[in-house]
Amino acid sequence: MGANSRTPDGRINILFVMYDQLRFDYLSCAGHPHLHTPNFDRVAAMGVRFTKAYVQSPICGSSRMSFYTGRYVSSHGAQWNGFPLRVGEMTLGDHLRREGMACWLIGKTHMKADAEGMARLGLSPDSIIGARQAECGFDAWVRDDGLWGEGPDGFYDEKRSPYNEYLKSKGYPSENPWADFANAGIDDDGEIASGWVFANADKPANIREEDSETPWLTRKTIEFIDQAEGAWCAHVSYIKPHWPYIVPAPYHDMYGPDHVPTPVRDDVERDNPHPVFGAYMEGKVAQAFQRDDVREKVIPAYMGLIKQCDDQLGVLLDHLEATGRMDNTMIVLTSDHGDYLGDHWLGEKDLFHEASVKIPLIVYDPRAEHDATRGTTCDALVESIDLAATFVEVAGGKVPDHIIEGRSLLPWLRGETPDWRRYAISEYDYSATPQCVKLGLEPRDARLFMVFDGRFKLIHAEGGFRPMLFDLETDPEEFHDLAKGTAHQAEIDRLYGCLANWGRRCAQRVTRSEDDIKAARGRSARRGILPFLVDGSEVPEALTEKLRGKAGGRYVDD
Amino acid sequence: MGANSRTPDGRINILFVMYDQLRFDYLSCAGHPHLHTPNFDRVAAMGVRFTKAYVQSPICGSSRMSFYTGRYVSSHGAQWNGFPLRVGEMTLGDHLRREGMACWLIGKTHMKADAEGMARLGLSPDSIIGARQAECGFDAWVRDDGLWGEGPDGFYDEKRSPYNEYLKSKGYPSENPWADFANAGIDDDGEIASGWVFANADKPANIREEDSETPWLTRKTIEFIDQAEGAWCAHVSYIKPHWPYIVPAPYHDMYGPDHVPTPVRDDVERDNPHPVFGAYMEGKVAQAFQRDDVREKVIPAYMGLIKQCDDQLGVLLDHLEATGRMDNTMIVLTSDHGDYLGDHWLGEKDLFHEASVKIPLIVYDPRAEHDATRGTTCDALVESIDLAATFVEVAGGKVPDHIIEGRSLLPWLRGETPDWRRYAISEYDYSATPQCVKLGLEPRDARLFMVFDGRFKLIHAEGGFRPMLFDLETDPEEFHDLAKGTAHQAEIDRLYGCLANWGRRCAQRVTRSEDDIKAARGRSARRGILPFLVDGSEVPEALTEKLRGKAGGRYVDD
Repeated sequence: MGANSRTPDGRINILFVMYDQLRFDYLSCAGHPHLHTPNFDRVAAMGVRFTKAYVQSPICGSSRMSFYTGRYVSSHGAQWNGFPLRVGEMTLGDHLRREGMACWLIGKTHMKADAEGMARLGLSPDSIIGARQAECGFDAWVRDDGLWGEGPDGFYDEKRSPYNEYLKSKGYPSENPWADFANAGIDDDGEIASGWVFANADKPANIREEDSETPWLTRKTIEFIDQAEGAWCAHVSYIKPHWPYIVPAPYHDMYGPDHVPTPVRDDVERDNPHPVFGAYMEGKVAQAFQRDDVREKVIPAYMGLIKQCDDQLGVLLDHLEATGRMDNTMIVLTSDHGDYLGDHWLGEKDLFHEASVKIPLIVYDPRAEHDATRGTTCDALVESIDLAATFVEVAGGKVPDHIIEGRSLLPWLRGETPDWRRYAISEYDYSATPQCVKLGLEPRDARLFMVFDGRFKLIHAEGGFRPMLFDLETDPEEFHDLAKGTAHQAEIDRLYGCLANWGRRCAQRVTRSEDDIKAARGRSARRGILPFLVDGSEVPEALTEKLRGKAGGRYVDD
Repeated sequence: MGANSRTPDGRINILFVMYDQLRFDYLSCAGHPHLHTPNFDRVAAMGVRFTKAYVQSPICGSSRMSFYTGRYVSSHGAQWNGFPLRVGEMTLGDHLRREGMACWLIGKTHMKADAEGMARLGLSPDSIIGARQAECGFDAWVRDDGLWGEGPDGFYDEKRSPYNEYLKSKGYPSENPWADFANAGIDDDGEIASGWVFANADKPANIREEDSETPWLTRKTIEFIDQAEGAWCAHVSYIKPHWPYIVPAPYHDMYGPDHVPTPVRDDVERDNPHPVFGAYMEGKVAQAFQRDDVREKVIPAYMGLIKQCDDQLGVLLDHLEATGRMDNTMIVLTSDHGDYLGDHWLGEKDLFHEASVKIPLIVYDPRAEHDATRGTTCDALVESIDLAATFVEVAGGKVPDHIIEGRSLLPWLRGETPDWRRYAISEYDYSATPQCVKLGLEPRDARLFMVFDGRFKLIHAEGGFRPMLFDLETDPEEFHDLAKGTAHQAEIDRLYGCLANWGRRCAQRVTRSEDDIKAARGRSARRGILPFLVDGSEVPEALTEKLRGKAGGRYVDD
């Protein structure tokens, strides 16, 4: 261990790195045949790679709110991008600060503040408390959600863009250099070739590589680390490899059509599909990704973006090593969901096939008690909410399991085999989508639930539809929806039982811990509530002394 | 209609009267053979009496939080008395004030403020916002939770007791005249005979009747009404007929052992009972109420307390009539739960037999559109959360059904037959009780759920127990637990399906209404998020104009 082997108070820090829309299998340590990611692999070799890690929702904002609250989507309620996280909902920042650990944000959260709730409670966004409420509990070193699109109704993101400010300071001549340079190429006529258009995905982004988003955020991270004092958790949250799918040179042509995997899809999936799956397959995104020309342009760009992320991770790791911090920093590498990239006839994320709902998760903990598991994989059913619990434990706290629904991963890192969950849950609220309209559903009926026990994956759809069922042991590619037939009713019933059990979880009793409850038992008697005494002999004298004494006068005629 | 037929803005006011622990069948309009309650009956004759109204929990605090939030217990999270209602959870006051209707409290809420949450958000109890958070959303005309017991560890209720202040001002010589006079008799030696002791239940409380709690709160209510301006909802919340079971003269000897009904109990209930039911039957409270001498003392006092409530209701109604307010005031009479009084070998509330979970509910709405139903009963499955929705509609608002889970009762008052819920849910968290300890359960496993479809009542118990099932059509007294056998598995499965469906309800998506969601669809494209354009031809020119233009320079070598 180096001179900096612990923070001043003896704890390790937490570098919680998230990539956006990074598929679990687009890393060389996870077996990708063409994409070489030596820096992800380097962390995997020092720590544990979790091979069955699932997000609580395959959509950015909802998934992230689960990471940040440690709670299921139905528990925190931010069920779609831009649905505000209700005021007062506790986050990682609240939990870690209680343990004396700072909690900083560097990058994206996709969190929308509950402005109405804050106003109702009189919270000003200018106050520290208000700012933390508005920033999902983080103190913001830099917040950049990475989607600075602008249309006829204005900007998608109403906040200031620190990244655009940076680009302007570097002389990029545009009011929105994010759109016009970082996420656009240039065509032969010198016109902007937008990165929104797949046909441009093979062009280099018209920006110096060092000015593109991933290196910029890496430098911000290093700035943060170098000045940080005391114990900290830093959420370093990259927008990439999320779309727009365009990447600067030299990453734009490192990969080509030859490196594009065959799509994981089968005609049987289009034969009498589940109505919700069918609606998604017919969507605009899916139609695009069903085209070979689209995949052959987009996937090499996506791979280039990941390769750039890997190189920048190397920069970060080298800095940690050079400054002696590798001994006192937990490193977590993960993603908020995957990307179909044409698998299952789909694009984007949204549904529950492995490409969408499964995430990469690599955890390195420098402490000696985790030495035995370095370089191993763990196939326990892990949920994204487990990280919040893990971090609270790293900070030295007891996990408040009446609030945080995830479980600490540290036992797995120590090489133990804890009694563990039997199934993972993920949810998807598609009420805001064209698919909801197409299916004629009311918003509250446009909700999906996944229950996966490690082998069978059940997807329940509200709105009166049949479920979907996949057996990943016999059908790892998830082509055969077993709920089309009747042979697997027992498995369906069993998984519905799991979902029902989950539905009755105690998720909102957030103001009383299990320990509080145990400690409070019997207290009311000692505070004078003695409602069921036949003659007073039932309880000790000490509790009934207040019952006696002279009456001080007769006020009624008996 | 009189001169005061509407409030200044044309709306009616709401007098939302709650009695504590009033059984549904201890009213003459509900068929009680000995207890004559002409004033309850008078409101029933003017309005609608709901004969199948159920509370969301048969325990004061949790039930009340459901009345006040319009949400199930698992949704608001205050699952037992004294478990704080989480900060920011919206209440009737929030909803009504948004419609410009004041919302006042006169009496009891049993709400505990989330002091930790308020501190986290920097809310001072001294501010208006803080005070409303601490008072369950109400503006407090007078708050008196009615349990001013004191023991070796101090007072059960840490607040100031306005009722004790009143008694002291009237010259009752005690530091706690609530305990020593209002809820105590006097024995032959001039000693205090505490109302906590059942043996004293037939004594008159040692207080002038006019000074006892029910008349005092009635006067407070009249004071409020006489000064109120604008549209208002007043929650008049009596502590009685809740224990201590003792009542002043002349009510103390209006009823005697001859008026005590035969207990609704059967030996078959004690034969291999469900473990949770068994644990409750063996409890101290139950043991007391299994004794005839206890019932013969307590029930006449309980009836006397109700008779006093009825007389005071008469005072209130007469005042409304005399001041012309009967035309502009909705009157709701209800309770937070019932009282076993020895039925089913039990005392208190806690479980889900009708005596406990069913409540009286009488609703009078003066408006002409409700004339057709006056004096009728309605047997729809009503839940206590329906009142919050009803009141929002009375206030002129649209029910925010992404927050309030109940449904307005006004269609029933108009004589319509709306498409209605198929089952009622009630919950009971007994983690704080001796029964939890006795059964060896962790707090989170000490939870019960009732699903009642109007005929079959299923009770699910967490912790690995079998369920209970009653058929109220063939067994209206609920003696025969059909889940002891195997003949009713189909009904059990069906009701478990209902419970599972309820468990997936969309309860926490409180920051986005269904209408918000519909209106937001497609907005991101008009704000520049165009992620899936193959060549840009997919969307209208208006949305893509920002994609074009001169690039302003080449920053990379292609």
